[in-house]
Amino acid sequence: MRAVDLIRRKRDSGELTREEINQLIGAYTRGDIPDYQMSAWLMAVVLRGMSGAEIAALTEAMLHSGQVLDFSGLPARKVDKHSTGGVGDKTSLIIAPIVAAGGLLVPMISGRGLGHTGGTLDKLESIPGFNVNLSLADFRRVLETCGCALIGQTAEIAPADKKIYALRDVTGTVESPALICASIMSKKLAEGIDAMVLDVKVGSGAFMKNDEDAALLAELMVETGKRMGKKVVALLTDMSQPLGCKAGNALEVAEAIELLNGGGPADLRELCLELAAWMLRLGERVQTVDEGKKLAWELVVSGRAREKFREIVRLQGGDSAVVDDPGLLPSARHHLDVPSPAGGYVVQTQCEQLGVACVVLGGGREKKEDKIDPAVGLAFHKRLGDPVQRGEPLCTLHYNSNARLEEAKRLVETAYRIEPQPPYELPPLVHRVIGA
Amino acid sequence: MRAVDLIRRKRDSGELTREEINQLIGAYTRGDIPDYQMSAWLMAVVLRGMSGAEIAALTEAMLHSGQVLDFSGLPARKVDKHSTGGVGDKTSLIIAPIVAAGGLLVPMISGRGLGHTGGTLDKLESIPGFNVNLSLADFRRVLETCGCALIGQTAEIAPADKKIYALRDVTGTVESPALICASIMSKKLAEGIDAMVLDVKVGSGAFMKNDEDAALLAELMVETGKRMGKKVVALLTDMSQPLGCKAGNALEVAEAIELLNGGGPADLRELCLELAAWMLRLGERVQTVDEGKKLAWELVVSGRAREKFREIVRLQGGDSAVVDDPGLLPSARHHLDVPSPAGGYVVQTQCEQLGVACVVLGGGREKKEDKIDPAVGLAFHKRLGDPVQRGEPLCTLHYNSNARLEEAKRLVETAYRIEPQPPYELPPLVHRVIGA
Repeated sequence: MRAVDLIRRKRDSGELTREEINQLIGAYTRGDIPDYQMSAWLMAVVLRGMSGAEIAALTEAMLHSGQVLDFSGLPARKVDKHSTGGVGDKTSLIIAPIVAAGGLLVPMISGRGLGHTGGTLDKLESIPGFNVNLSLADFRRVLETCGCALIGQTAEIAPADKKIYALRDVTGTVESPALICASIMSKKLAEGIDAMVLDVKVGSGAFMKNDEDAALLAELMVETGKRMGKKVVALLTDMSQPLGCKAGNALEVAEAIELLNGGGPADLRELCLELAAWMLRLGERVQTVDEGKKLAWELVVSGRAREKFREIVRLQGGDSAVVDDPGLLPSARHHLDVPSPAGGYVVQTQCEQLGVACVVLGGGREKKEDKIDPAVGLAFHKRLGDPVQRGEPLCTLHYNSNARLEEAKRLVETAYRIEPQPPYELPPLVHRVIGA
Repeated sequence: MRAVDLIRRKRDSGELTREEINQLIGAYTRGDIPDYQMSAWLMAVVLRGMSGAEIAALTEAMLHSGQVLDFSGLPARKVDKHSTGGVGDKTSLIIAPIVAAGGLLVPMISGRGLGHTGGTLDKLESIPGFNVNLSLADFRRVLETCGCALIGQTAEIAPADKKIYALRDVTGTVESPALICASIMSKKLAEGIDAMVLDVKVGSGAFMKNDEDAALLAELMVETGKRMGKKVVALLTDMSQPLGCKAGNALEVAEAIELLNGGGPADLRELCLELAAWMLRLGERVQTVDEGKKLAWELVVSGRAREKFREIVRLQGGDSAVVDDPGLLPSARHHLDVPSPAGGYVVQTQCEQLGVACVVLGGGREKKEDKIDPAVGLAFHKRLGDPVQRGEPLCTLHYNSNARLEEAKRLVETAYRIEPQPPYELPPLVHRVIGA
């Protein structure tokens, strides 16, 4: 195999065999193929695409570039959920304990916030003491003890993906459904799961702005998962406005606890029950999604999901007292209301801008090495369709430094479109289910 | 400027400004942009193309990455010819002395053979003592003394092109008309010429197999040259069979001398007079191409072109006695006739295969570091349309080692298509003239 021949073939819209993709990824991971050849191949993939068989081969090659966890000795089914990223998306913190309390195993390897979206690891780290950097041995121990553990990608998991992702980031080769699919699926399948629910976000706050793009990615991931013998379902869910009422790490943990106490915003609750229900169904704990929703809600109102969350926090070194007193979480010293510039109805939000506002306040990263302030964030007071009076707060900024406060304020102000008439229709929470 | 933004723009079919291209090429040549970003950008260019303005900007940036020769102090006009490469193409050895004898200056920076095509430098080096590695100062001295000098690309000339070409070779990004155009034109314009004739080869022995591809490249080069204020004309010329009767370095020098003595094959003579005529016209030595042809032929039959060739050989350190006695050139120890497998007419040749046969005998390079045997090559006995009897030689192999003789023989045997009927029509020598 000569790398240049594989590059040329893909450039000319040809298909690579499973064996060729395997050799290419193996050689690149070992350093036998230089970055400059891999980046030319990646650009050819971005512009020419990949067949389903190629994507599966790429996923498999990246998956087997590292350790694949094996929990087959544990009695219950292993299920996970993955979100493509949005603003205010704290569902993992809620559904992982629900599903674990329901008797399934949830070995969850999560990511950090990048761009305008938040990340589960950053949120968990706002809990004092919480350790997301467990060794794989400790990961297994926590999982065995309480049915759920949440960590970051370790060096042992899909090192090829890590190396390729870093290259894609600097060579303009991120935006490829085939590469996104292989990257996500290789990491998730390394968790040793039986089934997975994909939450593919769509709308102004998501990477995929329209249903067509989101559905394409969802279909690729479902097909790839099924080719690898896993049960996979994808939900296209709405991200045309933030999920729930809070964005920002500690603020979102507090909102997740609110939900585990049976409260919290309706949209967040509805989506969590939906996702948890699908996990319970794929994990064969229930027969139907409706049954799954009922079970999930029971696990919340009975307090069992909350107690499961407390147990996870404790086992991963966190201060579990936050579960009873979210006031122990870091909180920002200053608050600033952003008033509505007009009266009327909220008809649209530039949701990505709200995510960027959170980053600007210090709640996310603009560069990988940026440090996060867990306390800052946004509290949203108005949702799509809500009436609002001129001067009434749309949103409250929680901040510690006013260095970029004006920038954040401007981003929020211009993110809301207010019109005299209410919108004709509101987007549904779940747009489509793919692979069911 | 962030390199990744320029990569993304080109990936999405956008256009880069002159300034952006200039910065990109400058930063890459200095080593401030890594190979892996440049190769991703190059692949995006291959698949998305470039506008005329972008190609001109790229050419200019590569041209000015090194020294641009300035012969404006010399009284005569400076003209050159460039061929995109073929089999048996020894026209440079013939027309450079013709045009110099005609009173114009020909500062010719040439290349080596690569792939199945020969290169002027390798041919010249088959003349004992001939030095193609002159310093730029010596290049100027020879040019001033006799009106023509022939050297290879030095480190001072278009270093950006050198670096980018090496990267393209290993990243599947060679086959782009835009990049080929910028590479050729940046080197040629560095010669400090006023005008240039492009010989764009088309057919089974050329890189461009059909007129459409060849015309596209020709138009890009003509447009780019004109944007840079040069007179440029491109001739699409036939390469569906070898040019002349010899391929192989010393064999081609001998055939060139034959032509400079007023003999040689008709097709080679016709093309040389045509190309020389265009150079004489662009150099304003004559008013029309016909006038140019007459002058060129006079310069041959009067022996002035041959004496100019002798002078060039002597000034560049070569043994000028070869001009009178081509027997002093290296010659192969063994000859082998390849007989026709059938009787009939030659209706087609896989001309590229004949070039490869010459490489296989040692007359060309498969890898850049391969050493060339100047003595080996092929003598062709039959041209398209010629009648041939079964067993009659199509071609004679000149070889020194029989290590790969069988391979070369098989390539030649299968390169000729013999049919009972002669071909309906023969390809013209000049398919089209572009930019006149």
